[in-house]
Amino acid sequence: MTVSIETTSNLTANGIIHTLEKTADVRISELDSPKSPEDTNGFTNGANGHTLTSIDASLTTITHSTSPRSVPAPDDPAVLQQKTMTDHMLTCQWTSTHGWQTPTIVPYGPLSIMPSSSVLHYATECFEGMKLYRGYDGKLRLFRPTLNAQRMLLSSTRIALPGFDPSELLKLVVKLCAVDGPKWLPKERPGQFLYVRPTMIGNDPALGVQQPKEALFFVILSMFPCMDVLSHPVTGDPRGIRLLASQEDMVRAWPGGFGYAKVGANYGPSLVAQAEARSRGFDQILWLFGPQCAITEAGASNVFVVWRTREGGLQLVTAPLHGKIILDGVTRRSVLELARERLPNGWEQGGLDPLEVVEREFTMGEVEEAINEGRLLEAFTCGTAFFVAPIECVSWRGKELSIPCETVDGVCSGKYTALIKGWLKGIMYGKERHEWGYVVDEADV
Amino acid sequence: MTVSIETTSNLTANGIIHTLEKTADVRISELDSPKSPEDTNGFTNGANGHTLTSIDASLTTITHSTSPRSVPAPDDPAVLQQKTMTDHMLTCQWTSTHGWQTPTIVPYGPLSIMPSSSVLHYATECFEGMKLYRGYDGKLRLFRPTLNAQRMLLSSTRIALPGFDPSELLKLVVKLCAVDGPKWLPKERPGQFLYVRPTMIGNDPALGVQQPKEALFFVILSMFPCMDVLSHPVTGDPRGIRLLASQEDMVRAWPGGFGYAKVGANYGPSLVAQAEARSRGFDQILWLFGPQCAITEAGASNVFVVWRTREGGLQLVTAPLHGKIILDGVTRRSVLELARERLPNGWEQGGLDPLEVVEREFTMGEVEEAINEGRLLEAFTCGTAFFVAPIECVSWRGKELSIPCETVDGVCSGKYTALIKGWLKGIMYGKERHEWGYVVDEADV
Repeated sequence: MTVSIETTSNLTANGIIHTLEKTADVRISELDSPKSPEDTNGFTNGANGHTLTSIDASLTTITHSTSPRSVPAPDDPAVLQQKTMTDHMLTCQWTSTHGWQTPTIVPYGPLSIMPSSSVLHYATECFEGMKLYRGYDGKLRLFRPTLNAQRMLLSSTRIALPGFDPSELLKLVVKLCAVDGPKWLPKERPGQFLYVRPTMIGNDPALGVQQPKEALFFVILSMFPCMDVLSHPVTGDPRGIRLLASQEDMVRAWPGGFGYAKVGANYGPSLVAQAEARSRGFDQILWLFGPQCAITEAGASNVFVVWRTREGGLQLVTAPLHGKIILDGVTRRSVLELARERLPNGWEQGGLDPLEVVEREFTMGEVEEAINEGRLLEAFTCGTAFFVAPIECVSWRGKELSIPCETVDGVCSGKYTALIKGWLKGIMYGKERHEWGYVVDEADV
Repeated sequence: MTVSIETTSNLTANGIIHTLEKTADVRISELDSPKSPEDTNGFTNGANGHTLTSIDASLTTITHSTSPRSVPAPDDPAVLQQKTMTDHMLTCQWTSTHGWQTPTIVPYGPLSIMPSSSVLHYATECFEGMKLYRGYDGKLRLFRPTLNAQRMLLSSTRIALPGFDPSELLKLVVKLCAVDGPKWLPKERPGQFLYVRPTMIGNDPALGVQQPKEALFFVILSMFPCMDVLSHPVTGDPRGIRLLASQEDMVRAWPGGFGYAKVGANYGPSLVAQAEARSRGFDQILWLFGPQCAITEAGASNVFVVWRTREGGLQLVTAPLHGKIILDGVTRRSVLELARERLPNGWEQGGLDPLEVVEREFTMGEVEEAINEGRLLEAFTCGTAFFVAPIECVSWRGKELSIPCETVDGVCSGKYTALIKGWLKGIMYGKERHEWGYVVDEADV
């Protein structure tokens, strides 16, 4: 992981970010690996000088469930409510005196947590969101999982939880996928996925406000509804996501905070605004920041627009990472990389013009202008849970701004959005052989 | 609870708060009560139109522990590590379909929490900090507990957890205090206290990022070290708290955030900075905000200074609440109220001059100037856990700024600090009869 501290002088360019004098490059890299497990232990045991134990995935023990459940249909109410987990979970305990203990795969069930535990009071918790895909070639795949493992390290150390070797953590995720994947994602039903949730919590039972001296890493697998294809509740017509712009008295993240990390503290405080959005007929909050109303995230997803500049150039635009207030999303990064690689010269098959890819701060004012002048072509949110979801409108300052969204093959979407989404799906489900598809060996249990 | 929304035009006066156009008066009041329990249920069950059940403390059931523990000495290592809870805890479950269920007092022990529970992923959690005091008159007392109950409602609804009638919640706290207080705070040892921790968590096992449909309220009582009197680790000499000012890339709270609420999300993200402070020989972080380095909180406590203005006036100064980035501390409020009531004409017994009480934004630059010009007389942090703790130095921008702190009766403190602290102690331990002392009826079990 690269976390280089650099002094920047151009952050104040448009007046949005003004209190931050230095920032970190929080991009995570699939290439960089920690030099040794000790580099990433996060906490050393200074008191007694012992070297803490690193995670060792090869030691993982498995206790198979004696009461495995049947796999419900994808439209089962419990699945839609995101309450259906698979038969097993993986757990691995850490203490400040001994480090990481033996990982275990055990039947899925409740955790025993002391009422005084750190996680219940001080939100010492972080997680990752991944998906396990059953490919059309019959294989199980994760999508760029090393990025998730490395971001988990960024998150855990931001929230005062222990470090670890990301490659060993990934092996633990893969092991659980190998145990439950074959049954819960049967080969005869390609094109389905499970949601993978690696989580770390501080379970130190000491009530003081301090770094937890005990932590639990666990992984669970959940059945999950498909959330990127929406339809009108009455007519059933395909529709895009409807966003309600956040008010100035409700801010998701701020410079010097933790908006770039996948810590629980970013989510709970957003739920009141999200509930208000839903009660008013919107799907998610579009989080704005600062007096310029910079666009940051929507719900817990990154946001992209495709617009034509006044000079006539076509651009794919998303907010930059340097302010550290948005998540370095794996889907976001993949969209940027695919678009940069494949779209500078346009896309002949679809009759699509060349596109410039731009990471820069962009504002609701700019989006409104582009809409009013007919220059806004498409907009979408992207993330693991919601995948790539076209946006059909944004309500801002009392106005409902419509974004073009045409229905093609029963899905409401812009053309670039559909193209990029198709590429990603192809890689995830093994239709395109690509280094981003990480095959899970189902025999490795 | 009063939460009035007002439009303010003077927040930008010193350039510190600039993104907030409207703010809420988050002061809580001991006088205001909700009109009916339904007013504060937070969630109504719109789906089926049923009225949700309110908390009814009179229904509380008690299951006594069959293996009560002995009370350890105050200097027992487990007490110093804040791991010693009393024999019982109180729990009360809520669901969105039925409301609050029957409260139960049961033996203290682990909670059974599903790995998919909201609190473990999205920090849907809030708490209160109170103390139960064994008075010198033999009585058990809480200190202004209605303020805690009302603030808990402010916090729970900010973090998308259910509402409740604060007066019923307080009755639950009192019941647990009545069960465990007599044994854990024996009458023959007056002057001791237990730490009281009411907590609410979202235990909805659905993994989606949404308002929890299930929640658990619980109360635990902890033995707790006395943290307001410090001594030098080598010489044993009395000392004050040593603060390290936060860097500009580490910000505790932000306008439009949740710094005013007692939610877990304010604490975990602060622990990395706190650990750095401790590793450098300081006790806590002094949280600064904005380009002017406004002083907000220290650790999880409010901050006061006593200084002489250039015009010669004597002032007790603390940061205001209107920006919503600091906690409306019960101790903070009590210090302000006692000082306003008792000090405008000075304090004859102590030979202390009249003092003006001021709530306004004040900055590290002002504090440094006052120190350099010999005008800074005292500084202290205050809160329930650390009580009133004199500050002896602040490290800021590489300089260690010393704050006057004289040793009187074996304690390092300023004179006004000691006076105010003495008043508070008198009320807490029943030496002064005062409406803020809330007597717990030990027979009410």
